[in-house]
Amino acid sequence: MTVRAVSDSYPTRVSDRPMWIERSHPTAWPGVASGPASGAEVACYDRDGYLQIPGLLESEEVARYWDELGRLTTDPEIKADERTVVESSSDEVRSIFEVHKVSDVIAELARDPRVLGRVRQLLGSDVYIHQSRINYMPGFTGNGFYWHSDFETWHAEDGLPAPRTVSLSIALTDNYPFNGGLMVMPGSQHTFVSCTGATPANHYKESLQEQEVGTPDRDTLRALAHRCGIDQFTGPAGSALLFDCNMMHGSGNNITPFPRSNIFIVFNSVDNIPGAPFAAPTPRPGWVASRDHTPVRR
Amino acid sequence: MTVRAVSDSYPTRVSDRPMWIERSHPTAWPGVASGPASGAEVACYDRDGYLQIPGLLESEEVARYWDELGRLTTDPEIKADERTVVESSSDEVRSIFEVHKVSDVIAELARDPRVLGRVRQLLGSDVYIHQSRINYMPGFTGNGFYWHSDFETWHAEDGLPAPRTVSLSIALTDNYPFNGGLMVMPGSQHTFVSCTGATPANHYKESLQEQEVGTPDRDTLRALAHRCGIDQFTGPAGSALLFDCNMMHGSGNNITPFPRSNIFIVFNSVDNIPGAPFAAPTPRPGWVASRDHTPVRR
Repeated sequence: MTVRAVSDSYPTRVSDRPMWIERSHPTAWPGVASGPASGAEVACYDRDGYLQIPGLLESEEVARYWDELGRLTTDPEIKADERTVVESSSDEVRSIFEVHKVSDVIAELARDPRVLGRVRQLLGSDVYIHQSRINYMPGFTGNGFYWHSDFETWHAEDGLPAPRTVSLSIALTDNYPFNGGLMVMPGSQHTFVSCTGATPANHYKESLQEQEVGTPDRDTLRALAHRCGIDQFTGPAGSALLFDCNMMHGSGNNITPFPRSNIFIVFNSVDNIPGAPFAAPTPRPGWVASRDHTPVRR
Repeated sequence: MTVRAVSDSYPTRVSDRPMWIERSHPTAWPGVASGPASGAEVACYDRDGYLQIPGLLESEEVARYWDELGRLTTDPEIKADERTVVESSSDEVRSIFEVHKVSDVIAELARDPRVLGRVRQLLGSDVYIHQSRINYMPGFTGNGFYWHSDFETWHAEDGLPAPRTVSLSIALTDNYPFNGGLMVMPGSQHTFVSCTGATPANHYKESLQEQEVGTPDRDTLRALAHRCGIDQFTGPAGSALLFDCNMMHGSGNNITPFPRSNIFIVFNSVDNIPGAPFAAPTPRPGWVASRDHTPVRR
């Protein structure tokens, strides 16, 4: 275990008892006043920890990204890449990580003023890409993801000091209430849930499939759900969701015939560069948690 | 395999290829003109195969049935009964079958004019209870149920000749879009999906947990879902759903902390008494598929 000389505002995986820590950092950071998001939208994000943007992409754009997804998931070289997650039972591509480095089209999307402008407003600084991926979840057998805060993992395993990170999810398929769309607990980002257990070596290999260490206990989830309620990200293809890295979120399974596909880009503030992990033997590989902190520029 | 001398309008589990058979019987049956359902509601049911009744029960009534659920699930004698399904991992009661014979309160509910009146209108005759149960699905780990038509099983394994059967589900907890509420494909009841495979002996023992034989193929589900769409049963506790026995339905899992509980009563027409199974070695036990055809009377 690496011992850090820096102070840790969000200790986790250090005790056998879960703890609630009130967040000492803002959700929406001051610094960049103008951009595509209205003042009211920024205030909502600050309160709830998320912002839905219906129709961020036009339908022609959705079609273009859909084609790009098709191209990427059928390219044998990409399929063989370690950054690509292939489902063993079906031999189908499920996710491609660091996709902004694999695809110029996705790299361009990250620079798009509709995206970059909003993200800079929310984080109050220049930003770089901490993680990106494109996901394809099939119908009938789509597995969900249990409740968790991304920041808990990114702090423990990647060394992100503060929750100054925003995730963008853009739906490439229609999100219904019943095909495994993302659920969030609005306002939960104000509380850091310190988890129990210790991080095993190379934890990311399992946790990208199904996470155990770093998931909150049931009493905490029950209390948060009763306090915050649950909202679900639904809407036609092209809709987008921006959400804070400490948002408690998860998703159910998908037995419907309607698949789900999305582009997922995580932006971190350049003033929040990760150091050594706070609670893991070694940092995760760069394609899961980038060590390249070059700001995204228009 | 029992060979039936009667004609079979809905052959299933007889071939290796799925078949679509257009339903030759009505959904809403003529015969009982007056009752609590309006003509428009009966027409909707005939077209879509289901009818939602918001607030069928008052909140005081919900509380009374909730208490009854608590009493039943903690009674050691009931827990030991073969009609009670206990989850092995938690040792908790999940379902109690033939609950209208176990509980006077539930028996009274089946006779309630709000229930019996509507069911008689939809089936156009006197009715009896083919199956009843009370279900308790916990939060966090609630498993869903894959797509199926109940009539396919009730015809194959119980010998129900025609789809003249209606199921009533009454929510005892709030049904959100995200805690595993029932999904239906409206209008799918007009098509009988003949399934492949053969029924193993004592199939009900597994199929009450998770069904494989008697579930439709993916091409069929894809085509039905694109033709019919999917609706979901949501609403506060006390809401009810009446749905046709040949409705294609299923449910996702429930990772939220909000449990789901409901009362489920299946009414069959007294003019649709089951004979020998159409596609199973032996009929299922009476507590799953009643052989007592006494009409329910006010």
